[in-house]
Amino acid sequence: MELTYDNTGFKITHKGRVVLKHSETNPALYLGVGQSTFDMYRGNFDIKDYLTERLPLKQFTVTENAEDYVITLSLNGQGALIARVFETAEQRLKIEFTSLDETYNRFWIRIAATEDELVYGCGEQLSYFNLRGKNFPLWSSEPGVGRNKNTYTTWQADVKDKAGGDYYNTNYPQPTFVSDKKYFCHLETTAYADFDFTHALYHELQCWSIPEYLLFDAEASFPELMTNMTDVFGRQPALPEWVYNGVILGIQGGTEITLNKIAAAKEAGIEVAGVWCQDWQGIKMTSFGKRLQWDWQWNAALYPELDTKIHQLKEQGIRFLGYINPYVLQDFPLYNEAQRQGYLATQSDGSKYLVDFGEFYCGVVDFTNPDACAWYKDIIRHNMIDFGLDGWMGDFGEYLPTDCTLFNGESAEIEHNKWPYRWAKVQHEAIAEAGKTNDILFFMRAGGTGIQGYCHALWAGDQSVIWEKDDGLASVIPAALSAGLMGNGISHSDIGGYTTLHGNRRSKELFQRWAEMAAFTPIMRSHEGNRPDDNHQYDTDAETMAHLARMTKIYKHLKPYIRSAVIENATKGMPVQRPLFMHYEQDSEAYHIQYQYLFGRDLLVAPVYNQGETVKQLYLPEDEWVHVWSGKVFMGGWVEVDAPVGQPPVFYRKQSKDARLLAEISRY
Amino acid sequence: MELTYDNTGFKITHKGRVVLKHSETNPALYLGVGQSTFDMYRGNFDIKDYLTERLPLKQFTVTENAEDYVITLSLNGQGALIARVFETAEQRLKIEFTSLDETYNRFWIRIAATEDELVYGCGEQLSYFNLRGKNFPLWSSEPGVGRNKNTYTTWQADVKDKAGGDYYNTNYPQPTFVSDKKYFCHLETTAYADFDFTHALYHELQCWSIPEYLLFDAEASFPELMTNMTDVFGRQPALPEWVYNGVILGIQGGTEITLNKIAAAKEAGIEVAGVWCQDWQGIKMTSFGKRLQWDWQWNAALYPELDTKIHQLKEQGIRFLGYINPYVLQDFPLYNEAQRQGYLATQSDGSKYLVDFGEFYCGVVDFTNPDACAWYKDIIRHNMIDFGLDGWMGDFGEYLPTDCTLFNGESAEIEHNKWPYRWAKVQHEAIAEAGKTNDILFFMRAGGTGIQGYCHALWAGDQSVIWEKDDGLASVIPAALSAGLMGNGISHSDIGGYTTLHGNRRSKELFQRWAEMAAFTPIMRSHEGNRPDDNHQYDTDAETMAHLARMTKIYKHLKPYIRSAVIENATKGMPVQRPLFMHYEQDSEAYHIQYQYLFGRDLLVAPVYNQGETVKQLYLPEDEWVHVWSGKVFMGGWVEVDAPVGQPPVFYRKQSKDARLLAEISRY
Repeated sequence: MELTYDNTGFKITHKGRVVLKHSETNPALYLGVGQSTFDMYRGNFDIKDYLTERLPLKQFTVTENAEDYVITLSLNGQGALIARVFETAEQRLKIEFTSLDETYNRFWIRIAATEDELVYGCGEQLSYFNLRGKNFPLWSSEPGVGRNKNTYTTWQADVKDKAGGDYYNTNYPQPTFVSDKKYFCHLETTAYADFDFTHALYHELQCWSIPEYLLFDAEASFPELMTNMTDVFGRQPALPEWVYNGVILGIQGGTEITLNKIAAAKEAGIEVAGVWCQDWQGIKMTSFGKRLQWDWQWNAALYPELDTKIHQLKEQGIRFLGYINPYVLQDFPLYNEAQRQGYLATQSDGSKYLVDFGEFYCGVVDFTNPDACAWYKDIIRHNMIDFGLDGWMGDFGEYLPTDCTLFNGESAEIEHNKWPYRWAKVQHEAIAEAGKTNDILFFMRAGGTGIQGYCHALWAGDQSVIWEKDDGLASVIPAALSAGLMGNGISHSDIGGYTTLHGNRRSKELFQRWAEMAAFTPIMRSHEGNRPDDNHQYDTDAETMAHLARMTKIYKHLKPYIRSAVIENATKGMPVQRPLFMHYEQDSEAYHIQYQYLFGRDLLVAPVYNQGETVKQLYLPEDEWVHVWSGKVFMGGWVEVDAPVGQPPVFYRKQSKDARLLAEISRY
Repeated sequence: MELTYDNTGFKITHKGRVVLKHSETNPALYLGVGQSTFDMYRGNFDIKDYLTERLPLKQFTVTENAEDYVITLSLNGQGALIARVFETAEQRLKIEFTSLDETYNRFWIRIAATEDELVYGCGEQLSYFNLRGKNFPLWSSEPGVGRNKNTYTTWQADVKDKAGGDYYNTNYPQPTFVSDKKYFCHLETTAYADFDFTHALYHELQCWSIPEYLLFDAEASFPELMTNMTDVFGRQPALPEWVYNGVILGIQGGTEITLNKIAAAKEAGIEVAGVWCQDWQGIKMTSFGKRLQWDWQWNAALYPELDTKIHQLKEQGIRFLGYINPYVLQDFPLYNEAQRQGYLATQSDGSKYLVDFGEFYCGVVDFTNPDACAWYKDIIRHNMIDFGLDGWMGDFGEYLPTDCTLFNGESAEIEHNKWPYRWAKVQHEAIAEAGKTNDILFFMRAGGTGIQGYCHALWAGDQSVIWEKDDGLASVIPAALSAGLMGNGISHSDIGGYTTLHGNRRSKELFQRWAEMAAFTPIMRSHEGNRPDDNHQYDTDAETMAHLARMTKIYKHLKPYIRSAVIENATKGMPVQRPLFMHYEQDSEAYHIQYQYLFGRDLLVAPVYNQGETVKQLYLPEDEWVHVWSGKVFMGGWVEVDAPVGQPPVFYRKQSKDARLLAEISRY
């Protein structure tokens, strides 16, 4: 790193990239005072800030030491903020911040930018892959139903449930971005943040606390950058081998239904790796649809004999997955125990604090309390792992209310964005302590900084069963790409989508297009949706089953290829689904493609995400690409291929060492 | 006034009211820097502010002089703002502001408040009468279609035309509020402002420039406060005598249609004071509906013989009203002349600037150019007054774009909110110079500070033809009350509403309820709406005509009573439609009634604004009230009366000196 300064300003560069440019007329740093209000309704937040002060830190002094530079930034002649600038042992640029006045609870930093720069990341982003030209509030929440104020779905969701959301709402925000200039920039904070990429000459990063530090590093290539970043944030373990054996079928309704559905699926030629029964612990009906009984233990009434059947299934090569989240249902046994032990978040006076999840109320297990973590790990261990579950959906994590009181004394506003990380860590450790990391799969939708090392897989959350770009099939592509650039290289989605509300019902075509995409993601898993009867299901008709059977065979056929990509992710942080520019950095068009991806190094996938579309226009970076269905070779550029249902637009690289395996996709 | 101070703060009081309380820890004044963007689409503005600095002016010094106090507020030890505090000759508190640094373009001042205080005004407000608990951006614009993000009308208007609006959108904003503590507070600025009444202990007034001054005064009663305020802002002249003779019928379609409709109306017993033919200068069809040919001269093709008929009508006691606005239609004669003479606002390079009014484009007459004003006054004089028009709708005034260049060199962002005032002044002077102030009526929807002295009457703008509270019949009541408290005591509305879009069509019941209310406003005037064929009209059936006939007879019967209220407005600034607390200041409930009003001193009107409602619950302040239809006497409180169509809930004060006249309402 390099720091130069004179009387009027300073400049920090690292590995050839200008990071900060500060002058009295264009300060790079501001402090301020604001009063926030967070109004939560079932995971949807109405967040307001009454900003009373925003103060430019114009004056500064620099002290050069052997190991670092210390910049003191001043206000009214008084030191206000200390920035310690140094290079870490790993040669990353780090700037640690210390405020000299506790009044300040707002912080802005302007990272030097160029007008043509493109940026990505900020966690899992569903509407935009390239983030330039917009700002991104970073606060873990429901992702929104519709997510676009111009759609009727969004309007209905807003009016009925305050749940419409907007382009930036996400279960997984992270205050980190990646630039097309091959650097990453991370602000270490779990406070509410807002990264603003609308300015020509700087990116303005805001957070509602003084961040611990800024971390910045650059590399010569994107793959190297991925390794660098995952050295920082952690890497996902490889997937259990059984996952590659086929689809994980989302089934509900009890032991008999599950066994029957498995038999029927096999009969139809569907390759089944497992079944995922989210209602393994019983159900609860609400107006939203079927909900689950959040008291994490086998429900023998709904799943009789599951304690034995689960092992028989495993012997037949079918794994059984369940469901858990970090909340316990009021007045049920686990809640009562946690309440008795003091393991739940409370009101400020210590009295009970319940969160409204839509017609039922739950306690929040307080993961800042090590004893509560140990208790929850025990539950996972005994009720789930020891019972025989081979995985689960680790749902939620976004609902920590800002006005509850926590064991560690930290403000819930600061803990909120950290909660998904804490939740992942509890699950990961429960599995690791059972020695099952290589055999158990769990997947989460919520996320945040550091989750990479704990959460085995993401799923893209609750898409609506629609074709709209901001909340449907298409949206899971930028979600996987942005999360992948953050180091979460294993993502997947509910085949067919989930949210079945406001007149939206899943069509056969949507289910099929989604299944076609899922065959080219690290995990195939179906979901019935919140109102199963309104949705087309994988077993609604024989044609759908036959189509899914083909897709699962393709997926299974690709097992060695996918496994190798997954291992690359586990060892080098290289995401399984990759943006085109990952391997084609000279291709300027590649930086603007948000609905296609490379699946591993050598497959290019361009999912059909428009209803009724059977001819697909898509972009190929310069290379020799073989269209798997026609065998036709393309050399790059915008091309058009036939894409009837059953033939998703997929290409393999002719030079691939796996070319033979990949060419065989067309056999199915 | 009184100013006390010590080392830590100062306090300004006036007539027993604390106005400002300043201390280092709770500063009353802030300066800042922001970059605004105003994105206008057909009068709807998307306004954003990128606030880069907000600086508390903590330090201060006070200099006491014979005539004033001079407070110097400092920042970083440097003087930033001078506040000259003094009492005017009229014993009002005035605080003049001078910024010592031109960088600052944002200003905040906190007016001391109490938690229970209620406030009103801010121009014409359609959704809220009591403004406490909300903030009110003050920027003249289209008022919005629907005006409530929870309504389907609003959503459609937003998605199709960016036109849905919100609770604060108004044609007439004014940076002035009135408190239930019987004071008014005015910030003299035409910049974008935002008055925030959400805080317990202060009202925070923001504007995007340094305001010239703050003006504050208090009185012992609300009527005295009205006189005080209208001494400052001006008063409307009395209405021409002919107005009281009946309804002004909104008619379109040419001379023959007009004459036929007048004859039919008279035949049906409708008292007709005039006809208002907005298409007197010809029409233009667009997808929105019929629009007018904005080239302000008689269209002989559509209105043959109008030059003679207009005088014949006048002899028969029927006045003819037209239409004008401050824009000229591209490529038509007036536009060409204005363009040649340099009377139109331009681009910054002097080239032509056109405003999109929805499928047609117009030049903006530059009222900062005295020659342009003189030219437009001449057009009004010759083409309208001399032609024989006895009035007109003086439409628009809200569309001054912020990026045009004006003759006086002032920023269009600063001129924007002043434009309605300039537009009113041109019309008023054209009439006054013709010696016709007592005989010509014009009415505007746009407004701003000082329009009181120039605009003869307001109308409440373009309501949708619906029952919804934010944009329908109900909304014109708070509109009249808030505008009245600003000194615009003569307001009225389009009987039946105007905007006929998004599936909304005017029903018979809505027309009738609106006509019933209009009989108890200073002016009765109907409008066909933007899509006349979709609306129920006054002459759609005999029953509607008979109902309207009764209402016009009641209105005409009240002529002496209304005239006397109008004169009180012209001489003392006492609005004709008054909030209940105007005369019942001890009644705490009266301050919360926004859908009822006193019509003059002695009539209480509670319009039916809900579809299908035939029994009305309403509030009466403590007094002896006689229900006009039943003769039943009420002593105050919440009461219930029958209110079938034809019997609007109206009460007169038994002690009224006009009791006999008022009792006779029931004869009709």
